Amino acid sequence: MLIYLIPAAGVLALLFAAFKATWVKNQDPGDEKMVTIAGHIQEGAMAFLQREYSVLAVFVAVVGVLLAVGNAKLEGSHWLIGVAFVLGALSSGLAGYIGMKIATLANVRTTNAARNSLNKALEVAFSGGAVMGMVVVGLGVLGLSLLYIIFTHLYGETWGVTRIIQVISGFSLGASSIALFARVGGGIFTKAADVGADLVGKIEAGIPEDDPRNPAVIADNVGDNVGDVAGMGADLFESYVGSIVGSMILGVVFLPAGNLSGVLLPLVLAAVGIVVSIIGTFFVKTKEGGNPQVALNIGTFGAGGIMMVASYFVINQMLPSEWVFNGLTYNPMGVFIATVVGLAGGIAIGMITEYYTAEDRGPVQSIAKASETGAATNIIGGLGLGMQSTALPIIVLGFVILVAYHFSGLYGIAIAALGMLSTTGIQLAVDAYGPIADNAGGISEMAGLGAEVRERTDKLDAVGNTTAAIGKGFAIGSAALTALAMFAAYQQIVGLQSIDLLEPKVLVGLLFGSMLPFLFSSFAMDAVGRAAFAMIEEVRRQFREIPGLMEGKAEADFRRCVDISTAAAIKEMIVPGLIAVLTPVAVGFIGGTEMLGGLLAGVTATGVLLALFQSNAGGAWDNAKKHIEGGAFGGKGSDAHHAAVIGDTVGDPFKDTSGPSLNILIKLMSVISVVIAPLLI
Amino acid sequence: MLIYLIPAAGVLALLFAAFKATWVKNQDPGDEKMVTIAGHIQEGAMAFLQREYSVLAVFVAVVGVLLAVGNAKLEGSHWLIGVAFVLGALSSGLAGYIGMKIATLANVRTTNAARNSLNKALEVAFSGGAVMGMVVVGLGVLGLSLLYIIFTHLYGETWGVTRIIQVISGFSLGASSIALFARVGGGIFTKAADVGADLVGKIEAGIPEDDPRNPAVIADNVGDNVGDVAGMGADLFESYVGSIVGSMILGVVFLPAGNLSGVLLPLVLAAVGIVVSIIGTFFVKTKEGGNPQVALNIGTFGAGGIMMVASYFVINQMLPSEWVFNGLTYNPMGVFIATVVGLAGGIAIGMITEYYTAEDRGPVQSIAKASETGAATNIIGGLGLGMQSTALPIIVLGFVILVAYHFSGLYGIAIAALGMLSTTGIQLAVDAYGPIADNAGGISEMAGLGAEVRERTDKLDAVGNTTAAIGKGFAIGSAALTALAMFAAYQQIVGLQSIDLLEPKVLVGLLFGSMLPFLFSSFAMDAVGRAAFAMIEEVRRQFREIPGLMEGKAEADFRRCVDISTAAAIKEMIVPGLIAVLTPVAVGFIGGTEMLGGLLAGVTATGVLLALFQSNAGGAWDNAKKHIEGGAFGGKGSDAHHAAVIGDTVGDPFKDTSGPSLNILIKLMSVISVVIAPLLI
Repeated sequence: MLIYLIPAAGVLALLFAAFKATWVKNQDPGDEKMVTIAGHIQEGAMAFLQREYSVLAVFVAVVGVLLAVGNAKLEGSHWLIGVAFVLGALSSGLAGYIGMKIATLANVRTTNAARNSLNKALEVAFSGGAVMGMVVVGLGVLGLSLLYIIFTHLYGETWGVTRIIQVISGFSLGASSIALFARVGGGIFTKAADVGADLVGKIEAGIPEDDPRNPAVIADNVGDNVGDVAGMGADLFESYVGSIVGSMILGVVFLPAGNLSGVLLPLVLAAVGIVVSIIGTFFVKTKEGGNPQVALNIGTFGAGGIMMVASYFVINQMLPSEWVFNGLTYNPMGVFIATVVGLAGGIAIGMITEYYTAEDRGPVQSIAKASETGAATNIIGGLGLGMQSTALPIIVLGFVILVAYHFSGLYGIAIAALGMLSTTGIQLAVDAYGPIADNAGGISEMAGLGAEVRERTDKLDAVGNTTAAIGKGFAIGSAALTALAMFAAYQQIVGLQSIDLLEPKVLVGLLFGSMLPFLFSSFAMDAVGRAAFAMIEEVRRQFREIPGLMEGKAEADFRRCVDISTAAAIKEMIVPGLIAVLTPVAVGFIGGTEMLGGLLAGVTATGVLLALFQSNAGGAWDNAKKHIEGGAFGGKGSDAHHAAVIGDTVGDPFKDTSGPSLNILIKLMSVISVVIAPLLI
Repeated sequence: MLIYLIPAAGVLALLFAAFKATWVKNQDPGDEKMVTIAGHIQEGAMAFLQREYSVLAVFVAVVGVLLAVGNAKLEGSHWLIGVAFVLGALSSGLAGYIGMKIATLANVRTTNAARNSLNKALEVAFSGGAVMGMVVVGLGVLGLSLLYIIFTHLYGETWGVTRIIQVISGFSLGASSIALFARVGGGIFTKAADVGADLVGKIEAGIPEDDPRNPAVIADNVGDNVGDVAGMGADLFESYVGSIVGSMILGVVFLPAGNLSGVLLPLVLAAVGIVVSIIGTFFVKTKEGGNPQVALNIGTFGAGGIMMVASYFVINQMLPSEWVFNGLTYNPMGVFIATVVGLAGGIAIGMITEYYTAEDRGPVQSIAKASETGAATNIIGGLGLGMQSTALPIIVLGFVILVAYHFSGLYGIAIAALGMLSTTGIQLAVDAYGPIADNAGGISEMAGLGAEVRERTDKLDAVGNTTAAIGKGFAIGSAALTALAMFAAYQQIVGLQSIDLLEPKVLVGLLFGSMLPFLFSSFAMDAVGRAAFAMIEEVRRQFREIPGLMEGKAEADFRRCVDISTAAAIKEMIVPGLIAVLTPVAVGFIGGTEMLGGLLAGVTATGVLLALFQSNAGGAWDNAKKHIEGGAFGGKGSDAHHAAVIGDTVGDPFKDTSGPSLNILIKLMSVISVVIAPLLI
């Protein structure tokens, strides 16, 4: 009967989210002007989601039917995998919808709260983020555990556990599919708007950021929600679900036949993580004049600490005191070590990311200095820094893999991924807090509130930038481990004894897989380039054709700008999306299971590296510009500043479009491989 | 007795080189001013080589002794491997010395010839390049074949063939070591000078390229020789020797025991390639008003065609009509197909490179267009293009690997590499022609010769740019196949049955290996950044402190600039060099042979991709700038031009320092693994 506690934890998360959402809604949104501006942002964000989902609905329906038909007669699978797929996609879509809806209510309420109190503003912004976080973990755990319970109930006698989880993996694929389009589409939307708004507004027209005269400024604020709230949420939903499913598959064989504790442990850890995350949210408080960063740190690290203690007891309780797998003896302590090393690895990668991208550290300051000799040296410096920043995270990742494997085999690698992700509830709350605070600042600027308000929102926003950097590192690290867990699950299902690099087809798969992240990034960058170009033309047109716009006497047609970003995002996400989905299928069927294995290894290794490179270079350029704007090397308007703005613009698609998309690419390809595995045997 | 014909072919190449060198020397170097300028360039180039070699001498001596001592007691090796290593290093060093000496004589003689005739100028420049080409293949074949003959004579009875070639692989490692430092050091030298000269001269002082008032202009011209002649020569020498040695090792087991034709075939093909290359040089002729590109194409493609026919007969003559290996039946036709597919693949990769980097093609023109909206869009466009340009070459490479393996096993992959490289003699002649023509233009500018002369040298130089692009693609493709051949040779010596991606240590090796090209590139870029910064300061100082310099009344202190580049190159090449050398040793001894296998696969896959990305992005930025300078999008001095100059400057270290260094990295690591293999068993 204890198994029903797992979906109950999912329900608890959703109830907590509902409670937080109601609380946010009941806050005062401020004066009419603020409400109008916030309404525009919400309208734009929801319009984007609507159009995106209407395209995705077709995709999900087609793939769902294909999956159902393709697996209908298959011994290792079932047509219900199509249903699981649709449910996964719906859950991810719903999480994105709710999370963004509340985020676009929380932004203006944060602004209004900031008129009086920093602590209140922090509370509103963080509560808004917490809704996204809790909906993601709630729907994830609820969906997976219900499917497991229902399938076990219906087919437990005939199917065997592996087949049950295989069918459940459709849920994970559904999550991945939505994540792909949310990240790629959201990334294109936000950067087309951002680059367009900056290049014409700041540089050509000489008006400040978030100035309401700029027609692209609403689109820019919509983009923060679309890219950083919905996109990040879908990304972590995918990792979360993927790491649970991957661990479950590997758990089937890791423990002696008939013992299901290895299969259930991931679900239980996730359920416990929900409770711990909820507890963690209560630590996030600061007093007037206090540092919001400290509050957020206490929340996440506190939750991490509690989670570690809790998982020690859970693991010891659930697993036998000793067992043998593949001739080696394992014990619960080993599984606990894998959990801890995963969590510690995630934090370490986040901290390394912070080192390379924080404004007050050496790397960013050296890029700011390089801006003195012009844009070229700024760019060379950023590219070099981004490349260098890949080294330490890879060493950490290698360490995590070796330790986890040593103590708990391949299951340990999956559990390490889960260790990283068990407190996703609060981590994602912190991540989603960032764009809400950013939006709050934008609204205060557009509504013409005083300097004091802007100062408070800036303080919240500065914290948001750091958490974003750490969150990105965390997302990449967990994506890598999740992909590796799925990779291991894939070979277990296909029954491969080895994926031998001495086989040329494996090598060719590896080369081809290593190439895909480059190709994928190039599509994303090109898409941003084209969309930004269209945005620039439109903003120029409005400045030219709308009389009185520059004098602030006429209103800009911001809806056109939102439309341009939306249309571009929808159109441009399709080709890279199809490449990501179809490549593993084609390679698997034409080249065979081993070549597909090589492909997965290549895409994971190079994908992680390119993602780190692009995220960190982009983050560093961004903060180098902020450092100069803070007065260093001549400050705003200096030659160094012009150079740094160019670097920042180059970094925009790097860190917010192509880089994060790679997280999805590597997970998606391995999940697809798991799903089609029974067809390949 | 026929075996003595192989070293004879090496001697023939050296004699032909001597003949060409004497011919070049006997040409008229022009008036006193030209001779003085050319003297400065030669002096600088030779001073660099001298200082580089004096550092390398220590390195070579230490490693040579270590190798001799480490292998002295080893069953599978011998202390003579240290001697082979020193000989390989000496050969590479000697080839660089002679090639550059003649190139720095040919440049001014090309300028002088261009006063009267395009054809004569082409002949001089190409003859200068031919010396480099012939010395490289001559010393390569001579060294390897003599070592083989001597070792067989001395130890043939006791050692067995594998051990003989294992000891010979020291020669290959010697070649790789020099190549590493020549490419990295040369790349840093040339780009520090180029970036420094451009940023201060063209942008700050507003004086044209190659203006003698610019103190860094001699260093810039020296850099062309140091980077593009000596660096490229060492790179291809390494590939050439590596592919021969790799094929020889794999040839031991591919044919039935006792049949040495698989071992000798690579040497014979190389020897035949020398004769064919010499024949090819006679086709390189053009008439006044003709297109030098056509002449060079006829030379290389003609040689390729003849080589194909010749290798058909050689292979059929040498190999048995049918034999069995690993249960599969092979025949000479299969080996011939591997040769052909390798050569065709090399040409295809070169042509793809040309497509992405040629001034008159779509990709470069779209970057030129993106420059209209500023430097940021120019950079984004170039990065996207570079990433996209990796796709087709990887597909070609995968095709070559699969076909070659299908028809001739792992031996086929090595033979495909050799097929690509068999006509290195003429290919390198064409490559080295480029910088000579470039220098010739610089000298004509500095010596103040007329527009007619400059027009002729520009025509030669434009061809040089295309050949450089193709040559870079070719160098990357052959480096990849050579590395894979060495990878296969490594596992054969170590006796690995599989390198299994399901083993976490292999996966970690793969991740770590994939990271190294990023780290390596970041070192190279940082080095260029630092050195260029020092150069900029020095040029600014000279403009400030030397009275009359800007008016052309005083002479710049160009020696200081050459010194700065030299010192920076020597200093900065050491750390990346040591990383490249020590990593495989450390991973092999600590992580074991399988982790080292994973490392090699990772470094090769990602190394090839990053090399393609960087080379092609750099080449495209360069030609986008040239396209605008030719009058498009506003021409020289327009905003688009300023943006394109920034892109070109970013591309400089990409295409000439970090990109090409990766070719060496991937080959060097696999050669080291082969050399230390007996120690790891």
